[in-house]
Amino acid sequence: MKIVTLGEIMLRLSPVDKQRFVQADGFDVVYGGGEANVAVSLANYGHDAYFVSKLPKHEIGQAAINSLRKLGVHTEYIVRGGERIGIYYLEHGASMRPSKVIYDRTDSAIALSKPEEYDWDAIFKDAKWFHFSGITPAISAQGAKITKAACIAAKKHGVTVSVDLNYRKKLWTPEQAQKVMRDLMQYVDVCIGNEEDAELTLGFKPGGDVTKGVLDHKGYERIFKEMQQTFGFKYVATTLRESHSASDNGWSALIYDGKSFYYSKSYDIRIVDRVGGGDAFSGGLIHGLLTKANPGEALEFAVAASALKHTIFGDYNLVDEKEVDTLAKGDASGRVQR
Amino acid sequence: MKIVTLGEIMLRLSPVDKQRFVQADGFDVVYGGGEANVAVSLANYGHDAYFVSKLPKHEIGQAAINSLRKLGVHTEYIVRGGERIGIYYLEHGASMRPSKVIYDRTDSAIALSKPEEYDWDAIFKDAKWFHFSGITPAISAQGAKITKAACIAAKKHGVTVSVDLNYRKKLWTPEQAQKVMRDLMQYVDVCIGNEEDAELTLGFKPGGDVTKGVLDHKGYERIFKEMQQTFGFKYVATTLRESHSASDNGWSALIYDGKSFYYSKSYDIRIVDRVGGGDAFSGGLIHGLLTKANPGEALEFAVAASALKHTIFGDYNLVDEKEVDTLAKGDASGRVQR
Amino acid sequence: MKIVTLGEIMLRLSPVDKQRFVQADGFDVVYGGGEANVAVSLANYGHDAYFVSKLPKHEIGQAAINSLRKLGVHTEYIVRGGERIGIYYLEHGASMRPSKVIYDRTDSAIALSKPEEYDWDAIFKDAKWFHFSGITPAISAQGAKITKAACIAAKKHGVTVSVDLNYRKKLWTPEQAQKVMRDLMQYVDVCIGNEEDAELTLGFKPGGDVTKGVLDHKGYERIFKEMQQTFGFKYVATTLRESHSASDNGWSALIYDGKSFYYSKSYDIRIVDRVGGGDAFSGGLIHGLLTKANPGEALEFAVAASALKHTIFGDYNLVDEKEVDTLAKGDASGRVQR
Amino acid sequence: MKIVTLGEIMLRLSPVDKQRFVQADGFDVVYGGGEANVAVSLANYGHDAYFVSKLPKHEIGQAAINSLRKLGVHTEYIVRGGERIGIYYLEHGASMRPSKVIYDRTDSAIALSKPEEYDWDAIFKDAKWFHFSGITPAISAQGAKITKAACIAAKKHGVTVSVDLNYRKKLWTPEQAQKVMRDLMQYVDVCIGNEEDAELTLGFKPGGDVTKGVLDHKGYERIFKEMQQTFGFKYVATTLRESHSASDNGWSALIYDGKSFYYSKSYDIRIVDRVGGGDAFSGGLIHGLLTKANPGEALEFAVAASALKHTIFGDYNLVDEKEVDTLAKGDASGRVQR
Amino acid sequence: MKIVTLGEIMLRLSPVDKQRFVQADGFDVVYGGGEANVAVSLANYGHDAYFVSKLPKHEIGQAAINSLRKLGVHTEYIVRGGERIGIYYLEHGASMRPSKVIYDRTDSAIALSKPEEYDWDAIFKDAKWFHFSGITPAISAQGAKITKAACIAAKKHGVTVSVDLNYRKKLWTPEQAQKVMRDLMQYVDVCIGNEEDAELTLGFKPGGDVTKGVLDHKGYERIFKEMQQTFGFKYVATTLRESHSASDNGWSALIYDGKSFYYSKSYDIRIVDRVGGGDAFSGGLIHGLLTKANPGEALEFAVAASALKHTIFGDYNLVDEKEVDTLAKGDASGRVQR
Amino acid sequence: MKIVTLGEIMLRLSPVDKQRFVQADGFDVVYGGGEANVAVSLANYGHDAYFVSKLPKHEIGQAAINSLRKLGVHTEYIVRGGERIGIYYLEHGASMRPSKVIYDRTDSAIALSKPEEYDWDAIFKDAKWFHFSGITPAISAQGAKITKAACIAAKKHGVTVSVDLNYRKKLWTPEQAQKVMRDLMQYVDVCIGNEEDAELTLGFKPGGDVTKGVLDHKGYERIFKEMQQTFGFKYVATTLRESHSASDNGWSALIYDGKSFYYSKSYDIRIVDRVGGGDAFSGGLIHGLLTKANPGEALEFAVAASALKHTIFGDYNLVDEKEVDTLAKGDASGRVQR
Repeated sequence: MKIVTLGEIMLRLSPVDKQRFVQADGFDVVYGGGEANVAVSLANYGHDAYFVSKLPKHEIGQAAINSLRKLGVHTEYIVRGGERIGIYYLEHGASMRPSKVIYDRTDSAIALSKPEEYDWDAIFKDAKWFHFSGITPAISAQGAKITKAACIAAKKHGVTVSVDLNYRKKLWTPEQAQKVMRDLMQYVDVCIGNEEDAELTLGFKPGGDVTKGVLDHKGYERIFKEMQQTFGFKYVATTLRESHSASDNGWSALIYDGKSFYYSKSYDIRIVDRVGGGDAFSGGLIHGLLTKANPGEALEFAVAASALKHTIFGDYNLVDEKEVDTLAKGDASGRVQR
Repeated sequence: MKIVTLGEIMLRLSPVDKQRFVQADGFDVVYGGGEANVAVSLANYGHDAYFVSKLPKHEIGQAAINSLRKLGVHTEYIVRGGERIGIYYLEHGASMRPSKVIYDRTDSAIALSKPEEYDWDAIFKDAKWFHFSGITPAISAQGAKITKAACIAAKKHGVTVSVDLNYRKKLWTPEQAQKVMRDLMQYVDVCIGNEEDAELTLGFKPGGDVTKGVLDHKGYERIFKEMQQTFGFKYVATTLRESHSASDNGWSALIYDGKSFYYSKSYDIRIVDRVGGGDAFSGGLIHGLLTKANPGEALEFAVAASALKHTIFGDYNLVDEKEVDTLAKGDASGRVQR
Repeated sequence: MKIVTLGEIMLRLSPVDKQRFVQADGFDVVYGGGEANVAVSLANYGHDAYFVSKLPKHEIGQAAINSLRKLGVHTEYIVRGGERIGIYYLEHGASMRPSKVIYDRTDSAIALSKPEEYDWDAIFKDAKWFHFSGITPAISAQGAKITKAACIAAKKHGVTVSVDLNYRKKLWTPEQAQKVMRDLMQYVDVCIGNEEDAELTLGFKPGGDVTKGVLDHKGYERIFKEMQQTFGFKYVATTLRESHSASDNGWSALIYDGKSFYYSKSYDIRIVDRVGGGDAFSGGLIHGLLTKANPGEALEFAVAASALKHTIFGDYNLVDEKEVDTLAKGDASGRVQR
Repeated sequence: MKIVTLGEIMLRLSPVDKQRFVQADGFDVVYGGGEANVAVSLANYGHDAYFVSKLPKHEIGQAAINSLRKLGVHTEYIVRGGERIGIYYLEHGASMRPSKVIYDRTDSAIALSKPEEYDWDAIFKDAKWFHFSGITPAISAQGAKITKAACIAAKKHGVTVSVDLNYRKKLWTPEQAQKVMRDLMQYVDVCIGNEEDAELTLGFKPGGDVTKGVLDHKGYERIFKEMQQTFGFKYVATTLRESHSASDNGWSALIYDGKSFYYSKSYDIRIVDRVGGGDAFSGGLIHGLLTKANPGEALEFAVAASALKHTIFGDYNLVDEKEVDTLAKGDASGRVQR
Repeated sequence: MKIVTLGEIMLRLSPVDKQRFVQADGFDVVYGGGEANVAVSLANYGHDAYFVSKLPKHEIGQAAINSLRKLGVHTEYIVRGGERIGIYYLEHGASMRPSKVIYDRTDSAIALSKPEEYDWDAIFKDAKWFHFSGITPAISAQGAKITKAACIAAKKHGVTVSVDLNYRKKLWTPEQAQKVMRDLMQYVDVCIGNEEDAELTLGFKPGGDVTKGVLDHKGYERIFKEMQQTFGFKYVATTLRESHSASDNGWSALIYDGKSFYYSKSYDIRIVDRVGGGDAFSGGLIHGLLTKANPGEALEFAVAASALKHTIFGDYNLVDEKEVDTLAKGDASGRVQR
Repeated sequence: MKIVTLGEIMLRLSPVDKQRFVQADGFDVVYGGGEANVAVSLANYGHDAYFVSKLPKHEIGQAAINSLRKLGVHTEYIVRGGERIGIYYLEHGASMRPSKVIYDRTDSAIALSKPEEYDWDAIFKDAKWFHFSGITPAISAQGAKITKAACIAAKKHGVTVSVDLNYRKKLWTPEQAQKVMRDLMQYVDVCIGNEEDAELTLGFKPGGDVTKGVLDHKGYERIFKEMQQTFGFKYVATTLRESHSASDNGWSALIYDGKSFYYSKSYDIRIVDRVGGGDAFSGGLIHGLLTKANPGEALEFAVAASALKHTIFGDYNLVDEKEVDTLAKGDASGRVQR
């Protein structure tokens, strides 16, 4: 099934052996970004996943593409050109020491690209689903224009559209975010985002205090109803993270189909690499909604998929459907598979 | 004290930095195998441990031998020849993601070797103990013949015989296993195996459900009595693993001497490398039965030894007697030893 | 341009940091094999390169596929199944210490596969070129059948066929080789092989003594004429290696078009990794013959490409057309490209 | 603010990848030592930290100095000369397997140095604080003389003096320790040490049993009162470690100002590297007493700082004031900081 | 002796194990830049070297500073602020495969900084020498302004000024370069640059063809005379590189004092890392002109220093004066120093 | 054949990736020492090689023993006890940058051991050959006593004795050396040493200048005759190293049997690790004299063996007899052995 995602893929640099930045004389090199991560998940589940972006012609840009090709993601719609690939530096946390991210993504190739550089009709021909996130419209004015152009083209081709709201405070203010994102919601069928995202990108006032690891189910239900009523979403979903420490998290999720609220089972995770956990949820949810019997099963698939992501190094969720199903169906014993 | 173990030693290839197989561009290289692992434990406790096997003459075969010599295991009874060393690929799990093993051991040197290639009389001259596992008779028809030849020779020389039942579903069916293994039990004095092994290799019906991490003590006691009565074992023992996840296990053990059931204390383990945990138990139990005051102390030694194995990279249990005794006697505080 | 290669791709295991086998507790992991290497070269030059083989469904088989997908080689004709992937262990030499290869490839998935498992018509539809080597027919009787089936299908579809004779003494005898290979030559348009290959696989008596690093141009010319007359090849070509040591080689090449002999310029190479040098030559020659003005230019491209291969870790030649052209046109100064 | 610490800095060699000593064919290299570690903490908090020691002129001695300069510690009072730098080998423990330290520090440059090699007046000119530990007087008779000379000079310049009692049983007996240390206490304003230290270096009889992980608050309060009354300390403080295993510790602290006992909050730590935890506490406490509003806040800063140390590889505590304050003020959620 | 250098320090990312960019899943991390490299050389020779630049406040900026502090370079004049540190990706070449550099330095902190952010009077107070290169004025219009401000301040304080012309074609055109650089030459006492630099930044027409590795001594002498006459330089100097390959270079140098031409001895170098070779020459020449008996000896020191640089990983030349003198005086035998 | 060597085995610490000492944050760990290296060579050639020494009981001492056991050297005569293992730090040179060694071996276990700790009669029972070097008597007065005790016992048991003179200027003066070594020569049958050794340890005046890489054959012949006449050696031999750089050496050897001088062929070596080259020569020469037809063949074996050592990481020469013979007989082409 042809599924399209659009966004920025970055070079991720993290100190080897989980050192602090100031200790590092070596960086582990992976590539990733919210929408690229979703594309990888979908390719791993057997879909024809297409990632749309722009990357420089140099070898680092090529390496980013190769990281996707290696996993079966289609890269022919990636425009080549521009000067630089966005970078983020990642320091892995441990126990009560949090992970740190330093972004260096200004003026990346995609941030300076224009909607007319992309062949939207070719991209969305025969596509079934389009996924984007709140990051792409935030990276630049051009990013917002590209995202809107993609949404319009997707709708023209009858494609289902999902969004991960993903507010990034380093990229824009809530005012800027809401102005752009509320407009884009008209194209969206499935909206994914937590309380914080809902507040900062769409203007819905949350309860709870995420820094305390306290989850406010009632608050979520109220907000999700409001979101559904305001924008007519078919589904609203979120992950529910309980941050006990940088090493241990609780992890579950919630979906609302306009009628009922489904809560998934909850996982206690020993974290290997939590970056991309939310994207693994989005990828799992898209696959679940496309192939599973009901929203509850889709949600269980998505939360199991994203729990597994936390045990895998890098941004990409390197699990196949069978592995996710095994966990979703209840075997979390970790016994050796011979 | 001369102790003999017989079996296959394999090249183990595991992705560096605990990556998934598809991420790996480097493998950590160790050598190991159930009975070789037992030999290493016994050499570490001060015994003259002899490992019997067959390995190709090439450098990879030599490296396997060197891994044993390095730790003081005697290797002069290892026959050299044949084409290949068995391989297993190991992916380390984490949290709810299980470890995975891919075997590539068909037609290894030992699997194609014949009983007459081994000088059984020299091997068992002056020996006190012989240990084998259910893996060797499973690897090939020749493997079964070699194992039987070794058992017969051991008994001829008055050697105590122990077995770790160790059922491997990739190597044979329960029917095949029971045909071979029930016959071999006539030579066995000490039988080690969990419920699953007892059922699949010997035909005793267990209770409990190991995938649920639920331990069924009553079921074990019933089966162990049946096993003891059927085959006349002097001791029947098993480890009791509670698989909470790939990162955390509960670990204890049980021994039956035909009269009483002894349960060891239980350990909560943060797992570094769980492969070889059962072999470390066998090695510890043999040493315990040979040197400790009673089956209960022997069992405590064995379970402490095997708990420590889970904290050590590789198949081999690199601990000495004093370290095991310290833990068995109660100091699990992990305080720095300066 | 659609170009097809057929053969075995293997897991290559080489001690890290250029250690000897007996020192290694880590292996660098790459994948490669003569025809896969050629496919990578062709993909790097912009062709639609398709690699045909059979690989197990497990993760190691998948990793081999991913190594090709990453570089843009099409993998949809690779059949999945069988038990094992072939392995070769590689010890890098240095100075007067030669590199060593230990093969463990018996009964690999492709060696046990049958011609009817492959959809030859789909594979060669619209193809322009087919390349195979003398290794595939040598790995097993099935391998010989598959190769012949491919040649017949290629010819049916009007595809140009090239072969790299590549005699492997561990796989068959000269008698066996000549029986199979002489028959296959009827399908071949372009034949690549050195004196040793010509003698052992086709029965042409060479001069010179390759262990002495002495090149016998006259002997080559005589043999190439005989080969051309016997089998009607359009081109006969070979690399000319002068093995000064495991660290330093001289490197040039020769092509014969039935009329003239073209000798390339010669390179003095500091070797990083010489495995795949011959395959890089084949890949470069195919591209050269397809796109360059004459056989001499094609040859210069091929020899420059393969000289560069010796400076790159792994089996694959990771260079693009522009880099090869720059060297072929004379800039070997190694000045930093900023 | 100029702060001086005096002591030995050692080369620390620990097996890579947390292997056991007998597995190691590589050591991670860091430099550290109680008082050097304190100096690094203080430099990280913005002070002008000066470390005083003696090191050989060779490159390993230089590397030790460079490790300090890199982090902004002033090294101009380090005397150069002597034959060797002290070494300690560190094996990281895991779960119930304890960490191990092997010392090889006899006859190091500082242990053989004499008080008159140091320019005490220059060292303490304009200094505000002087910190030493019970290790330096223990390494040799010269070490004791140097320490006393430093204390006398510090007092002459009106500098506040703190000590970390830090008993090392490999270096001296309790009798030797008490003879030297009780004399030095006359110069001390702030005394840091746990029950064991208090007993072995100063002769105060503790309660509790640290190997059991049981903390005896009443016992501590009694001893601290006695210590304060005997030596007139302005503050007496200690960390309170609960050793659950080599992987998990509870961590809190206590300070007594002659009037009240302040207990800090307690942290559950997943340990990355526990060496230097006590030194990070000393460094944090000095900074806290110099800059925070009251002993309780100083203590919370110190215990948060030292809790963070356990999550950082090496001896040095690589955290800045803001990171410590964030944790001390309550956010231990480990959420990613973007 | 206080010596000041001004310029950009960058994060350098190079694939580990000398892989190609597209192979890398790890980067070695070092920091460097022309003028920072010169400062390190001077600190290693015992001078008080001050590096002036601007770097972001984040940890990557701090790590750059730490790399200098570690080696004794004074960093207190480095302004902190701005968004990003410049980056360059470096692929190490081998044999006939050239090294490649990809720059990502646009809009770095220093490129956007203004002259008034620097306290020029403090910087040049008591300074003896100021060194800059043609890179800093090329990075941005601000860079040119800063460089000019520094030159003016240096001259006001009576400081000797040296320049390394260092033309970078990715940063500006010859027209732009000449406009800026010819103006700056009025402040310069010592000018370092090869033919290419002299032509592109100052407009002097060279002979020879550097890509051919042919050195044109007569051409150099003519140009150097013209340069000296035009700008009144006290010394004009250049390195003379013969690029045999990326692995092997010939290396010597030339200096002109307005009267005589001095040619150094020539070295055949096996290259470990050639980046920073020219900077090591500048650092050696400054030290040589300040401390050696005559320009010829200064030149021999500079060329020996820079030859050694080629054998050292990273941008910085980690050699002390004694090591350079030993080589300059003739012992290039490489015998082990015990 | 039982062959005994006596001496110190040390922990060798060398910066990973051939960095300079001040760059290293990791050390490669191997064990080695002149006589241990000889024992490894002899075990590799199939002899029963026994290494005699003293090592601490701790894990680092055990690791040294394991490094020998791994390669088949008998270690049962190694006395356990004492405080420390000797250490040497090794920085690998490159091109004109020499390798550096820093010793830290004072007061090692063997240096403080006494002759009566060793059971000389057991050690030399049935032995055929005893080898020692000039290092052991140099490490301490005890070392000299042990060496003499061993020589006396060897002679009592009719064992052939060889020495490698191996002068170490950091350990003693020529006067001290000559006093001890001239006395020991009465027990020696085979003397190995270059001009420098002959002068400094035995007092024979050499010609030539080794720092210039000039070999003075006539001078050697004169000295060797004098040595033979003075001490009655059966053979006098030396390697002839031409130090072109730290990367490239010429390598040959010379032996004198009291009648004729035999010069070996010469090798041009690209050096991987030159430490232990001389020991590999001694090991090869002992094997050659015991098994080859004449001194010339013995010498060719020894020089080929030691040439190969330069291509192998670590102190030990990891080659077998067949590999050495292949090279000695003339194939230095380095062609891949498949």
